[in-house]
Amino acid sequence: MATSVLDAKEAGANGVGTAGARVMKALVYHGPGKFGWEDKPRPVLLEASDAIVRITTSTICGTDLHILKGDVPTVVDGRILGHEGIGVVEEIGSAVTEVKVGDKVILSCITACLKCDFCKRGMYSHCRSGGWILGNTIDGTQADYVRIPQANGSLYKFPEGGDEEALVMVSDILPTGFECGVLNGKVKPGDSMAIVGAGPVGLAVLLTAQFYSPGAIYMIDLDDKRLAVAKKFGATAVINSTDGKAVERAMELTGGAGVDVAVEAVGVPATFDICQSIVAAGGSVANVGVHGKPVSLHLEKLWDRNISITTRLVDTVTTPMMLKVIASGKIDPKQLATHRFALSDILKAYDTFGNAAREGALKVILRA
Amino acid sequence: MATSVLDAKEAGANGVGTAGARVMKALVYHGPGKFGWEDKPRPVLLEASDAIVRITTSTICGTDLHILKGDVPTVVDGRILGHEGIGVVEEIGSAVTEVKVGDKVILSCITACLKCDFCKRGMYSHCRSGGWILGNTIDGTQADYVRIPQANGSLYKFPEGGDEEALVMVSDILPTGFECGVLNGKVKPGDSMAIVGAGPVGLAVLLTAQFYSPGAIYMIDLDDKRLAVAKKFGATAVINSTDGKAVERAMELTGGAGVDVAVEAVGVPATFDICQSIVAAGGSVANVGVHGKPVSLHLEKLWDRNISITTRLVDTVTTPMMLKVIASGKIDPKQLATHRFALSDILKAYDTFGNAAREGALKVILRA
Amino acid sequence: MATSVLDAKEAGANGVGTAGARVMKALVYHGPGKFGWEDKPRPVLLEASDAIVRITTSTICGTDLHILKGDVPTVVDGRILGHEGIGVVEEIGSAVTEVKVGDKVILSCITACLKCDFCKRGMYSHCRSGGWILGNTIDGTQADYVRIPQANGSLYKFPEGGDEEALVMVSDILPTGFECGVLNGKVKPGDSMAIVGAGPVGLAVLLTAQFYSPGAIYMIDLDDKRLAVAKKFGATAVINSTDGKAVERAMELTGGAGVDVAVEAVGVPATFDICQSIVAAGGSVANVGVHGKPVSLHLEKLWDRNISITTRLVDTVTTPMMLKVIASGKIDPKQLATHRFALSDILKAYDTFGNAAREGALKVILRA
Amino acid sequence: MATSVLDAKEAGANGVGTAGARVMKALVYHGPGKFGWEDKPRPVLLEASDAIVRITTSTICGTDLHILKGDVPTVVDGRILGHEGIGVVEEIGSAVTEVKVGDKVILSCITACLKCDFCKRGMYSHCRSGGWILGNTIDGTQADYVRIPQANGSLYKFPEGGDEEALVMVSDILPTGFECGVLNGKVKPGDSMAIVGAGPVGLAVLLTAQFYSPGAIYMIDLDDKRLAVAKKFGATAVINSTDGKAVERAMELTGGAGVDVAVEAVGVPATFDICQSIVAAGGSVANVGVHGKPVSLHLEKLWDRNISITTRLVDTVTTPMMLKVIASGKIDPKQLATHRFALSDILKAYDTFGNAAREGALKVILRA
Repeated sequence: MATSVLDAKEAGANGVGTAGARVMKALVYHGPGKFGWEDKPRPVLLEASDAIVRITTSTICGTDLHILKGDVPTVVDGRILGHEGIGVVEEIGSAVTEVKVGDKVILSCITACLKCDFCKRGMYSHCRSGGWILGNTIDGTQADYVRIPQANGSLYKFPEGGDEEALVMVSDILPTGFECGVLNGKVKPGDSMAIVGAGPVGLAVLLTAQFYSPGAIYMIDLDDKRLAVAKKFGATAVINSTDGKAVERAMELTGGAGVDVAVEAVGVPATFDICQSIVAAGGSVANVGVHGKPVSLHLEKLWDRNISITTRLVDTVTTPMMLKVIASGKIDPKQLATHRFALSDILKAYDTFGNAAREGALKVILRA
Repeated sequence: MATSVLDAKEAGANGVGTAGARVMKALVYHGPGKFGWEDKPRPVLLEASDAIVRITTSTICGTDLHILKGDVPTVVDGRILGHEGIGVVEEIGSAVTEVKVGDKVILSCITACLKCDFCKRGMYSHCRSGGWILGNTIDGTQADYVRIPQANGSLYKFPEGGDEEALVMVSDILPTGFECGVLNGKVKPGDSMAIVGAGPVGLAVLLTAQFYSPGAIYMIDLDDKRLAVAKKFGATAVINSTDGKAVERAMELTGGAGVDVAVEAVGVPATFDICQSIVAAGGSVANVGVHGKPVSLHLEKLWDRNISITTRLVDTVTTPMMLKVIASGKIDPKQLATHRFALSDILKAYDTFGNAAREGALKVILRA
Repeated sequence: MATSVLDAKEAGANGVGTAGARVMKALVYHGPGKFGWEDKPRPVLLEASDAIVRITTSTICGTDLHILKGDVPTVVDGRILGHEGIGVVEEIGSAVTEVKVGDKVILSCITACLKCDFCKRGMYSHCRSGGWILGNTIDGTQADYVRIPQANGSLYKFPEGGDEEALVMVSDILPTGFECGVLNGKVKPGDSMAIVGAGPVGLAVLLTAQFYSPGAIYMIDLDDKRLAVAKKFGATAVINSTDGKAVERAMELTGGAGVDVAVEAVGVPATFDICQSIVAAGGSVANVGVHGKPVSLHLEKLWDRNISITTRLVDTVTTPMMLKVIASGKIDPKQLATHRFALSDILKAYDTFGNAAREGALKVILRA
Repeated sequence: MATSVLDAKEAGANGVGTAGARVMKALVYHGPGKFGWEDKPRPVLLEASDAIVRITTSTICGTDLHILKGDVPTVVDGRILGHEGIGVVEEIGSAVTEVKVGDKVILSCITACLKCDFCKRGMYSHCRSGGWILGNTIDGTQADYVRIPQANGSLYKFPEGGDEEALVMVSDILPTGFECGVLNGKVKPGDSMAIVGAGPVGLAVLLTAQFYSPGAIYMIDLDDKRLAVAKKFGATAVINSTDGKAVERAMELTGGAGVDVAVEAVGVPATFDICQSIVAAGGSVANVGVHGKPVSLHLEKLWDRNISITTRLVDTVTTPMMLKVIASGKIDPKQLATHRFALSDILKAYDTFGNAAREGALKVILRA
């Protein structure tokens, strides 16, 4: 079944738009607000480092909703969305050595060539030929099949006995929460921390922060339902910020000191502002949210507070570590999955996920 | 000569404002724009942890100019200014064990009790009973004598054979440049770095950055004279930012990548803005400047750039390391001293330092 | 009740050996194998930095057994043993600011002046005037009262609502396990680790390693009872090394890779040898045990294995962190307490602790 | 000129030992003491990730001498030696993307696939399909041509304007000194350090230690000529250990404290013993030497000294940093080259290098 890369290139050249092309279904973007579950040609190998993966489980990310609103200009008409998933390797190019046809794999949201200067520094997010490209500048994972460039650096073997609903969280949300929130925030045993935003990514921060045994984790959000989930996931206190008094509450809870680590997991100025207002002297503000506009940074108050502020697009360099921790049973990422749909029902899944508050949705699982 | 703490307290109680008080000269602040070289009572021991030091060398900090403008509300009428100096220990309280009467000492701008939670974490800047208090909330070092609280943590023995003009830079400017700029900026061998602001603190960053062998150091300033000094101090290239094109120049010099480390050593929004515009993906912005207003932080551009931004009031925890490096001859801080005055001519020294650009002044040395 | 330091010194001068001296009971060492629960004068303040503490809870350390065998030559005839305990501050010298009379406190096994070069670097273990001196070069805590030098750096406030049996473990065993085993071993989430020695210190390593969520913790010991305890405390697998096959078993469990972290918690060549034989390429051997003779280090096998080997006398710098983690309920150190005695029954307690295997003893609690 | 991988494989299959095989010259090992400059077939591409490099500069390593003595059993009869060199890429396999035919390149002594678990952790030395294989388990660089497997991870572009004699030191000796000695030794500004062994690798430690501005560097060796070189290279003091008093001298020089960092750069028990005897409390022993037998580690003295001992086979992960530092002119590795030969005169070069003490040889340069 494995096609050689030369054959595949030929097939690709001929196949697209011809009668001979094998057809599949995919979630296709057609500009702001327009998208559908449509026929598309099955992807073919284009480079020696590519793999073709048949999707068995996928999911939807908050970023996909941004794309659908037209907020992400790199995504053009005709693009297949999605950057998360589990699947089975169908074909590999001649330079692919780390997976073989038939392997079940976890797809990483970040494509890593492993060879460029950024990859060698562990900054896969800025890979010269990769980074976040899936469902962005190339077709993505909300489809029957997906082409994965740089397969050696972008696929992880699905562990024996693993659960697809749990491990699809490893594609993006868990390493994002862990690397951007927990590692950048330098969470240490006994620390006090606050997470602003109890959506899926904020909850991923909450789960993975517990790898380092902080003493107190305060979850701040506008939605009591999500705060209740946060409590269940290990938050030691929750703060509903609807009344605009989250800062006061956090300062009270910390005896006026502020938190050692404040994680921004929303992406708007107001939530960043909470973080910079509650971080203790010597503490860290770890930004996880995707921002669309500048924020006002109060250096006139912070210049002598010995704090750090970090930003990060997930590098997924901790994915091997994440898989080991999950294997040990330390966390159960499956809790993040609230709704299940057939992949072919993805339009319903988008409706549910797009109304997350109403539906009580965290991550929606799409099974092929 | 050493007076016991109880005697000293009594002397203090009696001495102030009485005929019996020993008098000294000091630079006294009387509100915005008003100050003089005046008679003041000699300080006396107030606590068991105090030492009284006779000043032999002092200097003026940019912060002192801010105080004189009325920008630092914690400084009240009657306050003796100054937080830098070399001197000789005249008296010690009963809890002082690390220096003895007659020792020549370097005074730290930061007062550290060593016992509070912040001091134990190495954050002397936020010491519960200290931090920056000299010449701020208590009388300072631009005087014949000064009382040093928490003498065990706030005085360093003057090394044998040391040079007072070189070592007075250890009171503040060298650890400030090193800790806030170089360490927080995580300068590594081969790194590219830019320092925005070629004043004394920016030059201290430049000198101490070389402890870690960066590959390129770009100095950015408006003043060609200061840039010429920076060249002499080791800058590999200089950028005069008068034309508003510093960002373009820095990007050119780095082949479009930006710098690994950008150090803000001025304290205004425009210079912070240069820093956030030129920092490379994966790089650091280390703020050293004292800011009076918020800055606009472009999270919409930076959220996925994997950068860190740090602030810090100097902790002076690296002072022992600094003394070892200076002893080894690696840097010559004396180059920072451009003008010399008798301590009693401090008003002239303020005039020179207050017109630093015109005078070509960096640090002015005051010798008692 | 607080006596001034001068009065105290006088009292001390007069008090020892006179009719007026206040008497207490203490466990006194008189050379190898000889010791008793005897009358001793109550300690008095000798330095301004001293505190006198009335013991409410104490315990016995494995090191005390070594002393009794005559293995610790710094301990001389007449010495009161013990370096762990909880108590109430009875008197303080004039330089003591961090605790006050009446405070309930945890006594640290390490005395720290906080002012010397080692203390400033966080190496309290090598404090120029402290380190491990309690129950070693000065009288210790197995007594009704104890004099604590450098009280500012050597006492920790007992947290409100705390449990004495749990918190007496903070005097020594928990920071020892954590600093020497876990921190030095650089335990990371998902790591595999082995602890050789399931005595109290090895179990302290086991408990505190879980602050960092290792993926697998193998406990190796000769005693099935202790291994059963280890299982209960969180070991993922146990290895009885009686058959001399611990190395083989550990290699099997790790698929031939060896462990990321091997902790030596016994102090003999054979157990160190297990550690160096099972450490993975890139891993760490963290020595916790007290050794009496050299070991053979197989550099001919290890020179290219990219490993680190560390030694450490506990610094107790993590005690504040430890107290925060315990307050959060993350671990329950009380599980380490297996037997309870009145302090006055300490000879029975020594008998039990000295036959730990037979008695199934871990830590014995002594309550005043 | 670039041959496709399939063609190359065919050529390889046919070419070896046939009339059509292209012939080259190489230094070939034939068992202990036996070697010659002989005809060998030119290497051909065997894998898609291979490159063929024409050698322009090579050199000899101390390890090559060990091989010739028969000390390295993985090296078999017929093997071409050498793991250092500069050359020009002649052919590349289809998976090679980081260099192209005609590129001048630095060859790394370590072969790195970049894709395995060890490579992803930055431990190229333990690469699952690489590590130190050149001139060991596969043919090496003392030849007209060499096949470089995993070319993407094992070749570095020769910088424009670079000097071949300087940059051939980047193949092995400089990263070895830096990673195994300086980084593992955790050299910090102001530190005192001792390097035991002033051979080429010890001198590489000396040069690269200066990236971090230690305050004192003591070089210890038996040979006054080498010690004189060390002085010239930046050693602040030298100790001739012929009299067996190196430990006493080092302790004197450090005022009895010992050194913060002791680097073992010889590989015998006696030199390791010096290191463990002179390391200060809290210090590091970084092993660089290749050892053939165990050493006696004095844990009975060191268990409470808070030291670390590290071993490491060079990973060459710092090669990009090294190239940046060299480009900045911070060090001049060319000083390590003492003798020059034509590559075809390699037998003379071996004679000189094999009698390094007599000849005053450090590195011998072989130019094709």
